Amino acid sequence: MTRFALTVEYDGRPFMGWQRQSHGPSVQQTIEDAIHAVTGERTAVHAAGRTDAGVHGLAMRAHVDIEKAIAPFRLMEAINARARPAPVAILDCIEVAGDWHARFSCIRRSYEYRIVNRRAPLTHEAGLAWQVPQPLDATTMAEAAERLVGRHDFTTFRSAHCQADSPVRTLDLLSVERDGDRVIVRAAARSFLHHQVRSMVGCLAYVGMGRWTPDDVGQALAACDRARLALNAPSDGLFFVRADYPAGS
Amino acid sequence: MTRFALTVEYDGRPFMGWQRQSHGPSVQQTIEDAIHAVTGERTAVHAAGRTDAGVHGLAMRAHVDIEKAIAPFRLMEAINARARPAPVAILDCIEVAGDWHARFSCIRRSYEYRIVNRRAPLTHEAGLAWQVPQPLDATTMAEAAERLVGRHDFTTFRSAHCQADSPVRTLDLLSVERDGDRVIVRAAARSFLHHQVRSMVGCLAYVGMGRWTPDDVGQALAACDRARLALNAPSDGLFFVRADYPAGS
Repeated sequence: MTRFALTVEYDGRPFMGWQRQSHGPSVQQTIEDAIHAVTGERTAVHAAGRTDAGVHGLAMRAHVDIEKAIAPFRLMEAINARARPAPVAILDCIEVAGDWHARFSCIRRSYEYRIVNRRAPLTHEAGLAWQVPQPLDATTMAEAAERLVGRHDFTTFRSAHCQADSPVRTLDLLSVERDGDRVIVRAAARSFLHHQVRSMVGCLAYVGMGRWTPDDVGQALAACDRARLALNAPSDGLFFVRADYPAGS
Repeated sequence: MTRFALTVEYDGRPFMGWQRQSHGPSVQQTIEDAIHAVTGERTAVHAAGRTDAGVHGLAMRAHVDIEKAIAPFRLMEAINARARPAPVAILDCIEVAGDWHARFSCIRRSYEYRIVNRRAPLTHEAGLAWQVPQPLDATTMAEAAERLVGRHDFTTFRSAHCQADSPVRTLDLLSVERDGDRVIVRAAARSFLHHQVRSMVGCLAYVGMGRWTPDDVGQALAACDRARLALNAPSDGLFFVRADYPAGS
C-alpha cells in the first residue's frame, strides 16, 4: 500500500462540488472512478478542502492509498487520461508517508476570489468570476478587510450548514487589490468555516459599493449573528489556490 | 446617421469566427442581430480584424452606422442585453467621425498567444490556450522570434486562403515570455497575413521543443515557401488584444 499526494486543478462549473454526492458529478468521484479504472481499486480520495458546487481548484491537495504497484508519474498520467473529458487535471503526484493526510496535516489554506468590476457581461470568464456592475472602491474594501484579520468568532460569516465544532478561526490574510477592472480578494488561514470566504467577500463588496462602511463590517463581525451578513458572494469567483504543510512532511 | 466605435470582447469557442457565415454563428452576426433588435436597422459591423473560428477577442475594435438617435451608453447596454447568452460583450461604445474606419484607419494590431506548457490537460482554459506537453525552451524561442521581426516576405507563414495583395508585412513585435508553466507570445504589426500569427507561433514552438534551431526559422522565412512551415498553432490560444488608431482620430 502506497500513499500518494496529488495536486489537482479543476473547473468547478460542471460539479456539485469536491465531495461525492448521490445527485450529481463531483471532483472526488471523477478522480476515484479514474483510479478504479486504472487499478481496479475502490479507494477514497481525501482533499485539503471540500469546495462547494461551482468553486474552482487551481492546486487542491489530496491523498489516496493504492495497493497496486504503480509509479507516481504513471498514476498521474493514467488518472488524467481516464478523467477526460471532465475538467479535472492532476498536476503533480508524489509518494508520501503513510501518516501524511491532505486534510489533517494541512496547516494553511489559501483562496483567491475574482471579481470583474464592469457593466459588460462576462465572456471567457463566465462562471469563473463574479461580475459586479457597480463601481467598487478597492481601497476602502482593503481597509474593511483588515477588520476581519486575526482570531475571531466568525459566526456572522458562517453558513447555517457549517459542521465545524467552533466558530472561532484565525484569519492570517485578507487582502484586496485592484488590477484594471479586476478586484482580487486573497484569503489565508489554517482553516475556514463553511462559506466564510464568500461571506467575507460579499460584505467587502458591500463596502466597495458604498452601502457599508468598514465599521459596519467590524460591527457585523462583533455581532456574531448570521442575520447581520450583507451578502454571500456567488461561488463562481472562488478558487482554492494553495494548501501548505509542515516542512519535510 | 451616427458612427459608433465599439470595443468588443468575445470567447471564440462557439463561433465560426468574426465574419458572418451562412453555415454557423459568428461574432459579427451576433452583434448585427442585437443591433437590429434594438434599432430595427440592418447594418454591417466592421472590425479591425476578422478573426478565424475559435480565435478570441479581448478588445476588438469595430464600427457601425446607425440612423436611430441613441446614446452610446444605451446602445452598448442594449447590445449586451440582446447578445446574451452568446459570449460577446461590448466593453465600450463612443461616437466617432464618419470617416473613422475600424479596419482601414487601424495602424497597429496586437495579438497574444497563450501556451500552457505542461503534461496535464487543461481544465478552466480548455479552448483558451494551447497545451504543449513537451518542455519548451522559451529563451531560444525568443531568440528565434527576433529573426522574424522587421519587413519581410511572409509567404511561408501565410495561409493558402490568404487574400492579401502582397505577402510583405512589417512585424513590429514578436516576443516570447515564460511565466511559470505559461509561455506567452506577443505580436504586433500594422497588419498580418491570414494565419500569420499562428504559423509563427507553430514554428517558435518547434524551436522550443528543440526540433528546430533559430536558424531554421530564418531559413524558413527566407524560403518564401508555405511547404517549409513547421506547424500552424491551433486557434485556441490566439487572442486579438488591441487595435491602435492615429492620435485624435
